[in-house]
Amino acid sequence: MHNKEVGRRNVLAGGLAAMATTAVAAPAFADETAVAATTAATVDEKLKGYTYPLSARGEANLAAAPPWHYAGDVVGVEFWTSAAAAAASLPTGLDPDPASSGHGYALFIDWQFSGDNEEYLDPVRSQYGEFLVLLDAVWQGTPVAWCPFIYVDNDSALARGWVQGFPKKMGAIRQTRAFAVNSQAAPVVGAGGKFAASMSAAGHRLAEATVTLEKTSATLPALGRPIVNLRHFPRLSLGQYDNPAVHELTMSILDNPQVANTWIGSGGLTFLPAPGEELAALAPERTGAGFRGSLSYTVTDLRILN
Amino acid sequence: MHNKEVGRRNVLAGGLAAMATTAVAAPAFADETAVAATTAATVDEKLKGYTYPLSARGEANLAAAPPWHYAGDVVGVEFWTSAAAAAASLPTGLDPDPASSGHGYALFIDWQFSGDNEEYLDPVRSQYGEFLVLLDAVWQGTPVAWCPFIYVDNDSALARGWVQGFPKKMGAIRQTRAFAVNSQAAPVVGAGGKFAASMSAAGHRLAEATVTLEKTSATLPALGRPIVNLRHFPRLSLGQYDNPAVHELTMSILDNPQVANTWIGSGGLTFLPAPGEELAALAPERTGAGFRGSLSYTVTDLRILN
Amino acid sequence: MHNKEVGRRNVLAGGLAAMATTAVAAPAFADETAVAATTAATVDEKLKGYTYPLSARGEANLAAAPPWHYAGDVVGVEFWTSAAAAAASLPTGLDPDPASSGHGYALFIDWQFSGDNEEYLDPVRSQYGEFLVLLDAVWQGTPVAWCPFIYVDNDSALARGWVQGFPKKMGAIRQTRAFAVNSQAAPVVGAGGKFAASMSAAGHRLAEATVTLEKTSATLPALGRPIVNLRHFPRLSLGQYDNPAVHELTMSILDNPQVANTWIGSGGLTFLPAPGEELAALAPERTGAGFRGSLSYTVTDLRILN
Amino acid sequence: MHNKEVGRRNVLAGGLAAMATTAVAAPAFADETAVAATTAATVDEKLKGYTYPLSARGEANLAAAPPWHYAGDVVGVEFWTSAAAAAASLPTGLDPDPASSGHGYALFIDWQFSGDNEEYLDPVRSQYGEFLVLLDAVWQGTPVAWCPFIYVDNDSALARGWVQGFPKKMGAIRQTRAFAVNSQAAPVVGAGGKFAASMSAAGHRLAEATVTLEKTSATLPALGRPIVNLRHFPRLSLGQYDNPAVHELTMSILDNPQVANTWIGSGGLTFLPAPGEELAALAPERTGAGFRGSLSYTVTDLRILN
Repeated sequence: MHNKEVGRRNVLAGGLAAMATTAVAAPAFADETAVAATTAATVDEKLKGYTYPLSARGEANLAAAPPWHYAGDVVGVEFWTSAAAAAASLPTGLDPDPASSGHGYALFIDWQFSGDNEEYLDPVRSQYGEFLVLLDAVWQGTPVAWCPFIYVDNDSALARGWVQGFPKKMGAIRQTRAFAVNSQAAPVVGAGGKFAASMSAAGHRLAEATVTLEKTSATLPALGRPIVNLRHFPRLSLGQYDNPAVHELTMSILDNPQVANTWIGSGGLTFLPAPGEELAALAPERTGAGFRGSLSYTVTDLRILN
Repeated sequence: MHNKEVGRRNVLAGGLAAMATTAVAAPAFADETAVAATTAATVDEKLKGYTYPLSARGEANLAAAPPWHYAGDVVGVEFWTSAAAAAASLPTGLDPDPASSGHGYALFIDWQFSGDNEEYLDPVRSQYGEFLVLLDAVWQGTPVAWCPFIYVDNDSALARGWVQGFPKKMGAIRQTRAFAVNSQAAPVVGAGGKFAASMSAAGHRLAEATVTLEKTSATLPALGRPIVNLRHFPRLSLGQYDNPAVHELTMSILDNPQVANTWIGSGGLTFLPAPGEELAALAPERTGAGFRGSLSYTVTDLRILN
Repeated sequence: MHNKEVGRRNVLAGGLAAMATTAVAAPAFADETAVAATTAATVDEKLKGYTYPLSARGEANLAAAPPWHYAGDVVGVEFWTSAAAAAASLPTGLDPDPASSGHGYALFIDWQFSGDNEEYLDPVRSQYGEFLVLLDAVWQGTPVAWCPFIYVDNDSALARGWVQGFPKKMGAIRQTRAFAVNSQAAPVVGAGGKFAASMSAAGHRLAEATVTLEKTSATLPALGRPIVNLRHFPRLSLGQYDNPAVHELTMSILDNPQVANTWIGSGGLTFLPAPGEELAALAPERTGAGFRGSLSYTVTDLRILN
Repeated sequence: MHNKEVGRRNVLAGGLAAMATTAVAAPAFADETAVAATTAATVDEKLKGYTYPLSARGEANLAAAPPWHYAGDVVGVEFWTSAAAAAASLPTGLDPDPASSGHGYALFIDWQFSGDNEEYLDPVRSQYGEFLVLLDAVWQGTPVAWCPFIYVDNDSALARGWVQGFPKKMGAIRQTRAFAVNSQAAPVVGAGGKFAASMSAAGHRLAEATVTLEKTSATLPALGRPIVNLRHFPRLSLGQYDNPAVHELTMSILDNPQVANTWIGSGGLTFLPAPGEELAALAPERTGAGFRGSLSYTVTDLRILN
């Protein structure tokens, strides 16, 4: 029963495009997850925990097992990179979307995380900034969003991300904030309000965005497609470097997605080159909508595609 | 005329206690500033800027001259430390307040700064966390708030603070955030909503607070007294270590103070000892109100008391 | 066969205890590894790279495939925790060492990393601080060192560590440094020289050590046993949280280990409690040798134990 | 009299160019300093300490009064910027050096600080990275070195710097390190050894250098002139923004300067533009010597020039 409910969320699978400020009823998707759950094996291990480090009490791990609840403010810009650059960024198993070649989004998100035990009351561990790129792609005929690059400033967020297949690196991410009080130090959340955001890693500025709000929107112009990641964990044994222990396409499942206070308008976006980085290979040729709003969802599951 | 207007703000001087969500008309305070302004000298200097570093174009300085606009979210807790500890923290020129011995506030603030040119669009430089303690004191019969310790995570904020007399050190400050969207990852801004905050410096946790909201409040239960600082800049020449170049009590002047979305309730507060720190000498013996809200003001002036 | 050979290299490998200041002649290197290489499977993947993120050019990954060369300065303290605490920290497959129950080392290391292309010329990415604990244990009758907790301040180091099975979290690690020049600001590398080290994570101080040098040593009193880790990568699919995709004991293989400038003496060590941490469960009951020196090795392989 | 003596020490002081690897006999130390000390005024202040924050016990201040002992490793590059850019960076009171117009040095230093009480045993507070530029200039006919820009990653270092007149901002500074052990992860301190260094601030890379060693040197090809700074502390009172409370040229006095293990060779240097920075206005037109070595000195005094 429970699993069936979970299954029902699936099509939603990251589909925030149609989300208004109230929860969305999602159509049925798949029954496989229920089957998987009943047949699950359990490893024989004295130590407790979900991610590194496993430990005697199971309290030291960077990330405990789900549920993982998220609330955040997003500043984002729609953009088009070259079709060739977008295609080159896709893993085996994904194809360019012929209908929207090179189209994608750059998102800067100020997140707050929690499990079921008010973990948001430890803001040092629960808060983080995130920058990610989503590019239109197709998986076996289904329009999806591929995440080639993503940065966070928190190791617990990095650990949860890796488990989901998000290829997170550490970076410094900031976005302009709005406040409940009027001030010349903050933009209005309204027509003409300006927000900016930036991301740096290893001391190099890699991305900068500006957004000017024009009008409210019932939806968030991104996350309209399920996010597909490449879950990957390499082997280190000699001769096995190219034979990873884990290498599988995944589809994110987002429970109870909600958005609020969403505004759209125009946006500017720049990606800057740096050694050891390939984000600038996806440099925008033009931008579309800029937007700013709040979103929330819960993660309890992941669909493995291959 | 202009100076007279400034003078009018003065009594306000940090008096947010009576501030509702709209701007407050402040009574007249003093005429001295006008006199001072008219007689101001100007240093003969080719380089431009306000704080370090002065430079050819005047763009490299950590802080440009005012106006300095601020908007922030505050999580705070009222507390009482021992009368002896509070008295020991006061500089020459301030006396304990016999009516509220040991009474004070601990404030954690997520700030956004701007000058007059949309500097909030550079969030890396304009945003910062701040933790400060304010203790009741009396200056020449006037009830004031003395700031013995304050920490920020941004060097521009540190530079502006030093000029005001705020004795800022660098620290890591975080507070629970609220979002426009419902989520198990965030508290409600409403009855029962829980917020936490912490401050660490040099890898030591120094302060932790929790607040549970109960009801709205038209005012912010802190900043009800003008803040008095000890502006100080030492000499390094041999024999002059105890003869600072600048050493004067100051009173902060806050223009156009506003608060919004203010809630009060109960609070918990802990100060922790560490080498090279004296915050724990002010450890709370009991706490009073906890509160959370937004505030804004502008700084353009400083009153020198002695 | 392969394992036997690897094991031989490995005994050396983890065996820095017997390493003097010159290079060590390594025993015969197995030919079986070549065999392994030729028979290794290769995943079908267009994207290039070794760890996250795989990318079009293969330059964005946090860690490229080995060789991984390391040079570092270590400040370390030998200690004994309670036998019960040490036993509780062991994973399934490892047993307490009856000959040295509760015995271990705390190591603080300032590392510099490089691949084969002078990556040490990018110090932002190649340098990092590390803190780790090693505890005596036994694997199938073989004395080994188990690493329950390890912290670094660099995401590339975290990525390489996870692949090896090191359960790395992010922390802030610092150790006193020595300089080629005499100064009251630095200890002598000689009798009476004092070094200190500390580690903090999430704003909490977790470990502090002091070492006073007494005499030179041809060996480094730690790393005398091969390090055994628990390589682990969880599943996120519903019902699979306790069925990790990767969960295997590993034995580290260190090529060409060298030490230099090694001094030993006495040491002090403290582990401090914090929420979300279990290091303090291994609090020292007493300490043994303190030491300080330099070490280097290369990693190209990992032995999987089960 | 006093100044004359100080000046004598000072010529030595800033004069590391002639320093060999052993201590330097310092010229007679003026007795007048004792006189100065006895006649020095002392502020009437209950609180204790030297810099912010003054406090009841005097332990919380960012920087205690001297002596300030320093030991460091420096990676540096000699360069020439345009004569016009160098001249534009000079404060009133300094003139371009007609003999070496545009000539200067970029220095990256890994410092360790201590007072007289083994403060180097708190490496979190005592260690820091520093980047600075020194440009040839003339003060009243005396060749001096002017420091237009300097960055550190430690607030105690920033506080000490401001008192000396160094216009420090916060940045992230790293340099390649050498180790006592051979490794492909580290350069040799010898002919052909390569070192690199970088500085970033506010997430922007601002400076990058590379040095290739060729031969030993008895001296350090920088710090050959006394450093002149502009000590500056502004006023905030309305109408006084351009009338700083402290604004004076100073000459650094370095006691007991020593260098060791100094190598010179060739160097490369790049300054990169960013908003809010003017370092790139001093971009190198060509470079001269690259060098790497260790240095130490003590600071107890500062000469005020005007």
